[in-house]
Amino acid sequence: MLGLTVDGRESPVEGGESRDPRPGSRVPVAILGATGTVGQVLVSRLATHPWFKPVALVASSATAGRKYADAVRWRLPGPIPADAAGLETRDTPPTDVPLVFSALSAQLSAEVEPQLAAQGVTVVSNASTHRMLADVPLVIPEVNAGHLALLEQQRQRWPGAIITNPNCVTAALAVALAPLHRALGLERLVISTMQAASGAGYPGVPSLDLLGNVVPFIEGEEEKIPRELNKLLGTLSDDGITPAGIRVSVHANRVPVVDGHLMTVSAGFRRPATAADVSQVLHEWRAPAIAGELPSTPAHPLLLHSLRDRPQPRLDCALGEGMTVSVGRIRDCAVLDVQFAVLGHNLVRGAAGAAVQLGELCAVRCALSA
Amino acid sequence: MLGLTVDGRESPVEGGESRDPRPGSRVPVAILGATGTVGQVLVSRLATHPWFKPVALVASSATAGRKYADAVRWRLPGPIPADAAGLETRDTPPTDVPLVFSALSAQLSAEVEPQLAAQGVTVVSNASTHRMLADVPLVIPEVNAGHLALLEQQRQRWPGAIITNPNCVTAALAVALAPLHRALGLERLVISTMQAASGAGYPGVPSLDLLGNVVPFIEGEEEKIPRELNKLLGTLSDDGITPAGIRVSVHANRVPVVDGHLMTVSAGFRRPATAADVSQVLHEWRAPAIAGELPSTPAHPLLLHSLRDRPQPRLDCALGEGMTVSVGRIRDCAVLDVQFAVLGHNLVRGAAGAAVQLGELCAVRCALSA
Amino acid sequence: MLGLTVDGRESPVEGGESRDPRPGSRVPVAILGATGTVGQVLVSRLATHPWFKPVALVASSATAGRKYADAVRWRLPGPIPADAAGLETRDTPPTDVPLVFSALSAQLSAEVEPQLAAQGVTVVSNASTHRMLADVPLVIPEVNAGHLALLEQQRQRWPGAIITNPNCVTAALAVALAPLHRALGLERLVISTMQAASGAGYPGVPSLDLLGNVVPFIEGEEEKIPRELNKLLGTLSDDGITPAGIRVSVHANRVPVVDGHLMTVSAGFRRPATAADVSQVLHEWRAPAIAGELPSTPAHPLLLHSLRDRPQPRLDCALGEGMTVSVGRIRDCAVLDVQFAVLGHNLVRGAAGAAVQLGELCAVRCALSA
Amino acid sequence: MLGLTVDGRESPVEGGESRDPRPGSRVPVAILGATGTVGQVLVSRLATHPWFKPVALVASSATAGRKYADAVRWRLPGPIPADAAGLETRDTPPTDVPLVFSALSAQLSAEVEPQLAAQGVTVVSNASTHRMLADVPLVIPEVNAGHLALLEQQRQRWPGAIITNPNCVTAALAVALAPLHRALGLERLVISTMQAASGAGYPGVPSLDLLGNVVPFIEGEEEKIPRELNKLLGTLSDDGITPAGIRVSVHANRVPVVDGHLMTVSAGFRRPATAADVSQVLHEWRAPAIAGELPSTPAHPLLLHSLRDRPQPRLDCALGEGMTVSVGRIRDCAVLDVQFAVLGHNLVRGAAGAAVQLGELCAVRCALSA
Repeated sequence: MLGLTVDGRESPVEGGESRDPRPGSRVPVAILGATGTVGQVLVSRLATHPWFKPVALVASSATAGRKYADAVRWRLPGPIPADAAGLETRDTPPTDVPLVFSALSAQLSAEVEPQLAAQGVTVVSNASTHRMLADVPLVIPEVNAGHLALLEQQRQRWPGAIITNPNCVTAALAVALAPLHRALGLERLVISTMQAASGAGYPGVPSLDLLGNVVPFIEGEEEKIPRELNKLLGTLSDDGITPAGIRVSVHANRVPVVDGHLMTVSAGFRRPATAADVSQVLHEWRAPAIAGELPSTPAHPLLLHSLRDRPQPRLDCALGEGMTVSVGRIRDCAVLDVQFAVLGHNLVRGAAGAAVQLGELCAVRCALSA
Repeated sequence: MLGLTVDGRESPVEGGESRDPRPGSRVPVAILGATGTVGQVLVSRLATHPWFKPVALVASSATAGRKYADAVRWRLPGPIPADAAGLETRDTPPTDVPLVFSALSAQLSAEVEPQLAAQGVTVVSNASTHRMLADVPLVIPEVNAGHLALLEQQRQRWPGAIITNPNCVTAALAVALAPLHRALGLERLVISTMQAASGAGYPGVPSLDLLGNVVPFIEGEEEKIPRELNKLLGTLSDDGITPAGIRVSVHANRVPVVDGHLMTVSAGFRRPATAADVSQVLHEWRAPAIAGELPSTPAHPLLLHSLRDRPQPRLDCALGEGMTVSVGRIRDCAVLDVQFAVLGHNLVRGAAGAAVQLGELCAVRCALSA
Repeated sequence: MLGLTVDGRESPVEGGESRDPRPGSRVPVAILGATGTVGQVLVSRLATHPWFKPVALVASSATAGRKYADAVRWRLPGPIPADAAGLETRDTPPTDVPLVFSALSAQLSAEVEPQLAAQGVTVVSNASTHRMLADVPLVIPEVNAGHLALLEQQRQRWPGAIITNPNCVTAALAVALAPLHRALGLERLVISTMQAASGAGYPGVPSLDLLGNVVPFIEGEEEKIPRELNKLLGTLSDDGITPAGIRVSVHANRVPVVDGHLMTVSAGFRRPATAADVSQVLHEWRAPAIAGELPSTPAHPLLLHSLRDRPQPRLDCALGEGMTVSVGRIRDCAVLDVQFAVLGHNLVRGAAGAAVQLGELCAVRCALSA
Repeated sequence: MLGLTVDGRESPVEGGESRDPRPGSRVPVAILGATGTVGQVLVSRLATHPWFKPVALVASSATAGRKYADAVRWRLPGPIPADAAGLETRDTPPTDVPLVFSALSAQLSAEVEPQLAAQGVTVVSNASTHRMLADVPLVIPEVNAGHLALLEQQRQRWPGAIITNPNCVTAALAVALAPLHRALGLERLVISTMQAASGAGYPGVPSLDLLGNVVPFIEGEEEKIPRELNKLLGTLSDDGITPAGIRVSVHANRVPVVDGHLMTVSAGFRRPATAADVSQVLHEWRAPAIAGELPSTPAHPLLLHSLRDRPQPRLDCALGEGMTVSVGRIRDCAVLDVQFAVLGHNLVRGAAGAAVQLGELCAVRCALSA
């Protein structure tokens, strides 16, 4: 649960283990968009989850009624988890489960998620649709678990809840930047991303666009990252979230990498800060206790690399079962204060893993009921 | 010879044609490091050059005495130019040619190039060794042809000359940034590079490092770019070059692309400037007349892309036979003033093409003699 | 026009030049499916064609009425040819041009091409739809130009004509195998393909399927190749084409390559033959005179590589402007007689270039009329 | 321990677990060539091995005396195992361990391995050097464990032993082909390989050779595979191994894949056989009991895929922790009898995993002594 400095030789204990399993049987959950790229990772990570048990897999009506194994074009290494393989997919979400994980598209989530919340279901959503609404928590347990309190406001709308995880780039960035913001006061960020193909889902980016090529544009990405980052790092009061007020400039690029978003960051602080300051803050950072109670929180949410050519997506994005965010190459910046590289697994820390971890936070903090 | 706005539909006249061939026969030239990656591009581009004729190919002693076709592991598409194929490689450079193109390593260039200059030869060098010396011109004809005047100082050292082109990233950047610096006064630059494999030569980067991966580090690159850029954009006076004084921060990354370095740039100016200002300056820019006289100068040294997902390395780096620098995605920056993407062919605009063009400038401006 | 042995040093004259331009003005032609991957290559190759002039670009009704530059997502290096860029796309093919190049899908070609033939138009089709019909010529000018005589039978159906080029793998294979079949009598072929992404069109293969991966299956490919190859190498009589009767086994694989299909071939002959026999036959082969009259026929339709690690798709597929088929690694086979590798550019020799060359053959052999 | 038919939905129990741990403490072992690509996988797999404990890591004299963590350029995902990280590398192999795993180059293995055997050490070698010697066992536990009896002959030479695993392609092929040979009598094989970059070690293949490209040649590979396959499938008698006598033709290709060699195979049998016969044989195959006792033997040494586009290297090569060989696309062949695709993890099933499993076989069958 600490920011550990590694140089390839230390052996961080990886993989969150269940530390506080809910007593009794696993909570039944549903997965919306279960056949998509993020949906498959949800199915895979929930199959053996200590607290949750997938009982309903929801996909398009085209595949409704077919077993999941027949409905999905499975793209993950290894076989489909046996329990999921045999489940019949359905095209309408169940309302008799207390918790639903949504990997729906923006369009569908706008329609479906409020309906579920209105019927008392807690929805953890990976969609961007509701993230910026004033009464919808946008939360990373290691960063801003307290923002879950926004649900009190949301409860005025409906008996259920919509809770969201950030987009895939923001998720990794926020884990690295939150300690810096708390300690040093972030003011300005110039970010250039090198994002993996899996971030666009399947079929996603045509191979003719990406083989031996870089595409210097990703729809909507450069707008989402600044606003989500500022909400995540914002402060909660009775009036809701006050955004952090960091000026953020983003260049979003797609590169021929399968998994793992790599970002270069130049950061300016309220007070002048050096690479040594940044290293020390990240090194001394400890995740809040609440995050440590969640099975999906890795032993090291944040890993500092000392090898000068790391982190690299193919070698490092799966650390901590994909939940560890890597930081490397911390050095002084000639324009702002400090520059460095950040890497996170877009499908895990940036999507499915984040959603599951958020569901765990709900299970600990909220009363889930069917 | 103009900065043209294109959206994929206009048809810039590509390829510099000989506009002012030296009267009479072609000047005999030698190529040092002729079997390497940059050397091969030099051989290829000089084979049909209107002004120059390669008469000596210099490589390591291991291959000396063998025909070039037997000495080289040819890596370019298409066959070896017939004239070059039959030349015997030699391991010592000739001193009876007026002009030598050097694609030597830093170590070898430190040894060999001064010896040649001392014997009256003009050396156009792609090596980084001498670039930053006070009396060595670092020149891009479209950017700072006037800096060639430094040779007057250098002539105090020896009868010959060493003239250098910048490193592969700087070359592309400078073509795009010089007009902006002249018009708006560059003050700060945050640059993140996505550099192609061919920039590291052959064998260069192991495939295991680059397949489906990004390496966020390139030895020496982050130091070279700021100092070369500031020399290129600096001002010449009797005291030599005064650097431009731009604060430059670089993140250098290697990506799985064959040819073409792509850079994201956030730029801050002395006076506040907008994306519209930058677009207008680049649009109205005209290359100086002297550049237009050189066969290697493309019809459009600078091309503005209006398609939102361009420039892309695989699609755009060969424009203008590799000498055109592409700029795209010009937009306001939330931290500095304006942000955009720049692309250049690292082996052509960033190395061999730059050297040939610089040799042409020498042919026009200097008295080449054997 | 000969099978030349090269080792990277000889300089084959590349690019078919106009040898027998039709007198007078260029023949007006239309392109069907002009916005697709093959359609774009047709537009590109016909823009400067000496005999043909594209006057109509046909695409889906979604883009009808828009200028081609606005209708197409241009994917080729370099800008859209200026003449084409300004043409309005239309959704119905013209019937007042004598010659139409069709890059339609199988489904659309089944519908549209007979209608055009019925109205007297000559259609050169890249679609697989009509290739195997008894009265439809399937022709490669260097291989079986005589099969064009099938049109006499087809004329009983309609005043126009449908003429087809083979699929992308077969096209390259047939150029290499035809001389061997004529000289030595092919009996058995075991072929394993490594096919480029562009063979599947755009968007085609998702990048998640192809980055760092091989897909050992391509729909329909293993069936098409044997039957098309046997028709191409078959004999024409009054009864039509008698297939060659070669037993052909194909393993079709998709590899992460942009352009260029590479095939390994093990061949068994009627009489025992050795690698030396195969080399000699290919070396001595000369394209038939009729092929030599066509602008698209390259100087070397067939190129023998002597370097032991060639041909390679990225380095060799663009030889002869994409029309040259490469053969390498000819050696004795422990199971059949001889084994070797064959490479061809799938979009050019295997699609658009083949169609244009076939159109040229029609222009020479048939009376094109509107 | 059975050949299981899967279609992506069944859940084979993966990973060999210790079933018969040697009583008492782990056997001390040394690793030769510990810093190379295969050496790193050996270090990784032996770190937590139930029977063996690495006590000596041997590398070149350049790194001798440095801790392994400082001596190695670690290329595997995740950190260096802690025990190994702290070991000092040495440049001479120890002779006081009973078992040594060698990942030496051919040249070094020729020198070092006999010296160790002469001093009583049992050497499990991944090098090709000794594989074909008459008294050296070339063994895959699932295929020909009985060939270990050759050691009786070898003991006449020295008190120790040299035992070898096959090359990376042969290893995967033999697991799939052995059951077919036993049941149906293999007579002829035409094989085309698509081999991963990691098969060439590090730095290995330059990225410029492999990005978006295929290299249709791998030094020595086409000779090794036939002779090793015939020895592995040969019969043991008092006179040693009689090779299987299968005629084997190989086309070896390098493709831009990180890990996992994929082979297309056309097979001819003594008696005519069909795809159905081959499927049945593979489906019914059970690994011999002795293999089942070894921790490295996976639950499914052989996996039959029913999805038509599998196996794929990136998705399937890590099945069974890299020890499972995948077979797919079994269908009748128009030239020989049956054709199909075979995939294996070249670094695991084809190198380090094979060596460890072979060491386990020695531990069970031989008396290991120091």
